[in-house]
Amino acid sequence: MSVSDDDNWLRVLLSTRLDKLSSPTSISNLKYDLNAGVPDSGSLPLEPLRRAFDEVLSLNPKQALTYDTPNFGFEPLKEAVIEKIAETFRDIDSSWVSLVSGSAHGLDNIAATFVDEGDVILVGAPTYPGAIRTFTSRGAKLISVEQDEYGFSAAGLEASLTTGAASKLRIKAAYLIPNYDNPSSTLMPLERRKTLIEIARRHEILLIEDGAYAGIDLSGAPPLSLFQLAQGRGVIYCGTFSKTIATGLRSGYILAPPAVTKALKFMRFDNASSSLVQQAIHKFYTSDEYPEHLEKIQKVYRGRRDVVTHALDKYCKSFVNFSDPEGGFFHWLTLREGLSANEIREAAALQGVAISPGQGYYLTDHGEQDSRVRIVFSALDEESLVDAIRLLGKSFEIISK
Amino acid sequence: MSVSDDDNWLRVLLSTRLDKLSSPTSISNLKYDLNAGVPDSGSLPLEPLRRAFDEVLSLNPKQALTYDTPNFGFEPLKEAVIEKIAETFRDIDSSWVSLVSGSAHGLDNIAATFVDEGDVILVGAPTYPGAIRTFTSRGAKLISVEQDEYGFSAAGLEASLTTGAASKLRIKAAYLIPNYDNPSSTLMPLERRKTLIEIARRHEILLIEDGAYAGIDLSGAPPLSLFQLAQGRGVIYCGTFSKTIATGLRSGYILAPPAVTKALKFMRFDNASSSLVQQAIHKFYTSDEYPEHLEKIQKVYRGRRDVVTHALDKYCKSFVNFSDPEGGFFHWLTLREGLSANEIREAAALQGVAISPGQGYYLTDHGEQDSRVRIVFSALDEESLVDAIRLLGKSFEIISK
Repeated sequence: MSVSDDDNWLRVLLSTRLDKLSSPTSISNLKYDLNAGVPDSGSLPLEPLRRAFDEVLSLNPKQALTYDTPNFGFEPLKEAVIEKIAETFRDIDSSWVSLVSGSAHGLDNIAATFVDEGDVILVGAPTYPGAIRTFTSRGAKLISVEQDEYGFSAAGLEASLTTGAASKLRIKAAYLIPNYDNPSSTLMPLERRKTLIEIARRHEILLIEDGAYAGIDLSGAPPLSLFQLAQGRGVIYCGTFSKTIATGLRSGYILAPPAVTKALKFMRFDNASSSLVQQAIHKFYTSDEYPEHLEKIQKVYRGRRDVVTHALDKYCKSFVNFSDPEGGFFHWLTLREGLSANEIREAAALQGVAISPGQGYYLTDHGEQDSRVRIVFSALDEESLVDAIRLLGKSFEIISK
Repeated sequence: MSVSDDDNWLRVLLSTRLDKLSSPTSISNLKYDLNAGVPDSGSLPLEPLRRAFDEVLSLNPKQALTYDTPNFGFEPLKEAVIEKIAETFRDIDSSWVSLVSGSAHGLDNIAATFVDEGDVILVGAPTYPGAIRTFTSRGAKLISVEQDEYGFSAAGLEASLTTGAASKLRIKAAYLIPNYDNPSSTLMPLERRKTLIEIARRHEILLIEDGAYAGIDLSGAPPLSLFQLAQGRGVIYCGTFSKTIATGLRSGYILAPPAVTKALKFMRFDNASSSLVQQAIHKFYTSDEYPEHLEKIQKVYRGRRDVVTHALDKYCKSFVNFSDPEGGFFHWLTLREGLSANEIREAAALQGVAISPGQGYYLTDHGEQDSRVRIVFSALDEESLVDAIRLLGKSFEIISK
């Protein structure tokens, strides 16, 4: 990034890391925003959260309003998180959990704990741009592994690890989003999960599993997480309450073996996250209202996904291919040969529709990047989504002429 | 730090940074904790905060519960923060402010933005251990500058910068706590502030001003902050609502020139702090109740400081020297020659009193470290404080025999 001319003295002082990072996603001012991957603001559990904060601040305010070090997390919320997976993972207890200020913050904590300058982290091609920024900011060198229709490629991982070992690279971990990948929306099947765990274990690298979209299941239950399948050995799971409860709470969790959790807490420099927020979340998360809320938002997102799928079939069929997402927030489009993601982004913007071209999701120049587009179905209502996809279709027609 | 034997595979993967960091302050289980530098939990503004959260979640919940990127801070709270200093700093506006999850998190953000591996940050001898951990975790090499009765030594700063330049060190910044230093409680006089600004400007380094104890004024108003005196040029100010409102909210702010603020936001990897918490703080911070609350807690801390000062004079006079703190949370004791901070810590622990020996506040072996002790007057009630200091006196007598 650049600083203004009258702050020339600053250029010398800023970390050189700034020059290595891309800009974070910007906010669109266009009428139809299919760019920002955010939850539906109409589905926020406003009243339950208001009640939860009120109860915590009426009944247990002192503990909620004081430092939470060295616990790094309200114990009952840790317990509630592990209870959801305890059936398939009996040995887990709260020494496996630390609570963070959202999963982005969790990834930063993981990066601080594992990355030395020059260490390699493997990421998907494509992958979540926030993870690219976070790992790079800690000095990691990122190398991409192809994604196929089943997600993170097992053959790609094996090849990268073998080549890396031969080149004496210090490969520390692979970062992946097995449930409803961002941006590709892929749901990784069970077999691929098992294969990746086996490869990672053999090469003694970590798997960093980002569960950002876990719970946004729109076509039935997904396979067990890598973390559950591996019984935590060699896998760190990063979870969040942002997508299922509210992004503005900034609350999430990391599941990892106790020795790793201890290291993660040791590498916290924020004097822990807000215990007040965690206690309020705990009230809602463990109430009967939470499963109802989850069903409700799944229904909303299922409706929106279907509306976009149908609208794409109706208005954009001759321009794009895509798989129907089984969960999450996105459709990941492959453009017909000859069409450019950047061109359609510009054309759609003229129609008032913001979309994300593929470029931002790849580390460097990649054959796929200009033939991919991510569009978000989670944020707008069904009527707006249909309008937006109709205008996207019109934009395709314009650039195809 | 060490990991357990059955996680041997992990050792290889953990960042080497972990070995360079000391452990964070631990919690004492002793009856009288004069170790943890925390606010009085009996003075928390419980009811105003309960009302504030309730109002935000009743009136403006959607904005409060969604992502706050790329703003990095609720605009009205930014405005309220700068209004407090606008009289002496007319050109400031909200482009100078970013909101963080407490000032510890703010220091981490500053470190991420300015520190490259091997860069030097100057810190006081003594200084806040959390700052040592934070800057070191980002690869900084720390060098200490003596503190005298007026705080961070100007001659020491000048000498370090001159020597550093000759040795081609990349000195980026000096970190200091001018108001009620942690641990020394020094209030830096105006002249020293002006001198430090002049030296830093001439050598083109940053001053990172930690205002953690700002507002905890127990003997009248302090001089203007370095940030105000320099009109922000070359100074970054890190503020917090932890000491004056509540530590469990995890909310603070950074004041810096707009180009720096832009860089600080660019180096955030947490998708911003909780807007909900900021909006609730805003309600209380801008209400008529806030100045009353501030007066009330100043009165509480003034009473506790006086009680400890008198008790030290009564029970420990022949063992320690100290200056009466003009604000903040601590008494910083100089032990009589021949007494050891570690010995008195052990002896006091046997009496049920936890104190902090000097060691933790110095970078490396330092002549002063075993003759200094920090004791906290903010957390316990007056009666407990008198008991604790009486027991401390008894402990001194035991080790002096």
